[in-house]
Amino acid sequence: MSSAELTHQATVARTERLPVLMEDIEAAARAISGQIKHTPTTVSKTLSKIAGATLALKFENLQFTAAFKERGALNKLLALTEEERKNGVIAMSAGNHAQGVAYHAARLGIPATIVMPEGTPMVKVEHTAAHGARVIVHGEKLEDAAKRAHEIAAEEALYFLHPFDDPVVIAGQGTIAIEMLADQPEIDTLVIPIGGGGLISGMAIAAKAINPDIRIVGVQSALFPSMHAAVEGYEPEFGIDSLAEGIAVKYPGKLTQEIVGAVVDDIILVDEVALEHAVSMLVNVEKTVAEGAGAAGLAAVLSHPEKFHGRHIGLVVCGGNIDPRLLAAILLRDLMREGRLVRLRIRIRDLPGQLVKVAQTIANAGGNIMDIEHHRIFTDLPAKGTYVDIEVETRDRDHLNALTAEVAAAGFRVQILHAADQTLPPK
Amino acid sequence: MSSAELTHQATVARTERLPVLMEDIEAAARAISGQIKHTPTTVSKTLSKIAGATLALKFENLQFTAAFKERGALNKLLALTEEERKNGVIAMSAGNHAQGVAYHAARLGIPATIVMPEGTPMVKVEHTAAHGARVIVHGEKLEDAAKRAHEIAAEEALYFLHPFDDPVVIAGQGTIAIEMLADQPEIDTLVIPIGGGGLISGMAIAAKAINPDIRIVGVQSALFPSMHAAVEGYEPEFGIDSLAEGIAVKYPGKLTQEIVGAVVDDIILVDEVALEHAVSMLVNVEKTVAEGAGAAGLAAVLSHPEKFHGRHIGLVVCGGNIDPRLLAAILLRDLMREGRLVRLRIRIRDLPGQLVKVAQTIANAGGNIMDIEHHRIFTDLPAKGTYVDIEVETRDRDHLNALTAEVAAAGFRVQILHAADQTLPPK
Repeated sequence: MSSAELTHQATVARTERLPVLMEDIEAAARAISGQIKHTPTTVSKTLSKIAGATLALKFENLQFTAAFKERGALNKLLALTEEERKNGVIAMSAGNHAQGVAYHAARLGIPATIVMPEGTPMVKVEHTAAHGARVIVHGEKLEDAAKRAHEIAAEEALYFLHPFDDPVVIAGQGTIAIEMLADQPEIDTLVIPIGGGGLISGMAIAAKAINPDIRIVGVQSALFPSMHAAVEGYEPEFGIDSLAEGIAVKYPGKLTQEIVGAVVDDIILVDEVALEHAVSMLVNVEKTVAEGAGAAGLAAVLSHPEKFHGRHIGLVVCGGNIDPRLLAAILLRDLMREGRLVRLRIRIRDLPGQLVKVAQTIANAGGNIMDIEHHRIFTDLPAKGTYVDIEVETRDRDHLNALTAEVAAAGFRVQILHAADQTLPPK
Repeated sequence: MSSAELTHQATVARTERLPVLMEDIEAAARAISGQIKHTPTTVSKTLSKIAGATLALKFENLQFTAAFKERGALNKLLALTEEERKNGVIAMSAGNHAQGVAYHAARLGIPATIVMPEGTPMVKVEHTAAHGARVIVHGEKLEDAAKRAHEIAAEEALYFLHPFDDPVVIAGQGTIAIEMLADQPEIDTLVIPIGGGGLISGMAIAAKAINPDIRIVGVQSALFPSMHAAVEGYEPEFGIDSLAEGIAVKYPGKLTQEIVGAVVDDIILVDEVALEHAVSMLVNVEKTVAEGAGAAGLAAVLSHPEKFHGRHIGLVVCGGNIDPRLLAAILLRDLMREGRLVRLRIRIRDLPGQLVKVAQTIANAGGNIMDIEHHRIFTDLPAKGTYVDIEVETRDRDHLNALTAEVAAAGFRVQILHAADQTLPPK
């Protein structure tokens, strides 16, 4: 037997003992068919060129609630007993699981209660309530909200619908891999975000069943490396807030941890700048709106190109629920990092005509002035010295450098305030 | 013969004399097939609910250059003689036509020169050059750029590829209607942006050939009502800048004017606020990025719901090339118009603790403070009075009103600076 055949057999043997089997995922695909969108998987020419690999994106952000979570939630709702459906369900979620449960429960006539922690983005609270669920905002932390949800479940005899650590939910998420590999059989690597681990668990089992050689790479926010820590066996340290709040989970599931340990080949941690840049790329190149977690796969590929060079990669844009204010900030910050939007602090003498001269110099160099702030008081310069902060749009970093050189040549001291080279996404 | 049959016959008779026939469009569909994406047409549940009509969106912003213009450009490039192809082509365009020509000319090995007017958004200049075209930025106005392009065409024996007033280009754009009505045969109304008129001309001819009863509604920016004026016979007045620069065309084509006059049932003008709101809705609801012109159809439906109630409407999201800075501004301005992001000007006494008290009151009312600006000098208040401008995020307009009431109850005079009710999109 060849070593490749041995690997196949080992994979098969490993997956046969797992709590979710390919047949469960195939059953889920049949159960949810027609009630969930079969979202497109398309190769991005531009992103492929940038990454040095073929990138196929599956747009799960085009589901009705703009996230893949519907699949697992619906599969579970369909599996409830008549009595459980009648009593109703409860879920705890900061976002997409909430909307998935609320939407499909309403469709199926099942009463739903959603407990959301304080600080959940307003857009997610609103959408969940709009689907007709009873929404209870409670608890500063996820743990507090979960505790409250379990209490209400006990008090009111509601079924607690876990967001990931349930074989039926995991099977639902796995249906994504079946669709993706049917649409793009050339995919040899799947890069999948990990929060609780439901998505990657289901997808990995289905993908390995279809193609035992496929490589499964997980992605976590570097601020929330919970599954990475669990698999690697270290004590994780957590950050406060990640742009990818959809995968900012402190405690991975028991089932998902077992599955990830068995079938995931690698887990990559991505930083916030890489996440922001990936969200921005998806808007600018793919014309699609992804939330932080939805862009995590692309962030991983762009920040670790050496791991993916030449491969045919499947990425799941798993969600698109991002607050518009946050999205606006990310777009601007990304321009800033590229040197296309900068704030120049320019020292001038406090005399008539100085500001005009600076502005004229910038205009001559092709810079587009967006905003001017003139500081006269809070400065440590001599009373007759002052400075202006000028926000300028440039074509790119080279143009920026040429422009600041012109301003300096005109006799002004100029300092770039926010062009943050050091926070550029890894090349 | 019934009156419906008479109408059919009249439509058929009218379209048979036009400079573009259905058979030209069918030939175009065969010619460009496989080199252009057959983009999806999907019904939006949420937008349909909001509009009180069924809205089916065709995502032409998912073409490689993020706009439908590729279709006409490619159809024309394929129709050139061997010698014309060898000599190369030239086009004048502020944007999407440029990219369509540049991209497909490069693919086909045809040298391309693009003249773009000064002030063309940087993202469009960059993308056009990146496709391998020679880009010449010339002329303050479109007219000047066009003149220069014609001069270069004469000097260098290049084929001038018109963006819309060419039957072969029009036939290429018409292929969109064939795809749309094949994918969604229930569509009974098409709402189509008009710049030069190429898109609506091609689509209207194809659509009326497929279904003579279909209603064709054109949309123009109220700042550039050129085709509307031509058809209605008045002298148009033009604005300076429209968000929908892709349809900000002063002189409609001769051919397109003839076709629009014959087969378009109505033309609606949309204002800038409606365009901004539609761009924002497409991001927030559909998770897709549209430029102003790409959102014009949705803007028309949302600002004139009475014209569309109960109909099955096809909209073309015809382009997605929007500068990220502009998109960020639109998202924020739309929140502002909804009362979800406001600037409050609050008069306080210049004493320690006043600012804390204001901030605490806002926090207690559930407002999220984004920015504070303290004015002490440029105020006409007595020396001991001053004011702060506080940018606050709220859930919605009701929440905003409750919050300002709380601030007033705490003894502060409060004024909403930018909540611009008067610029809300028409209901």
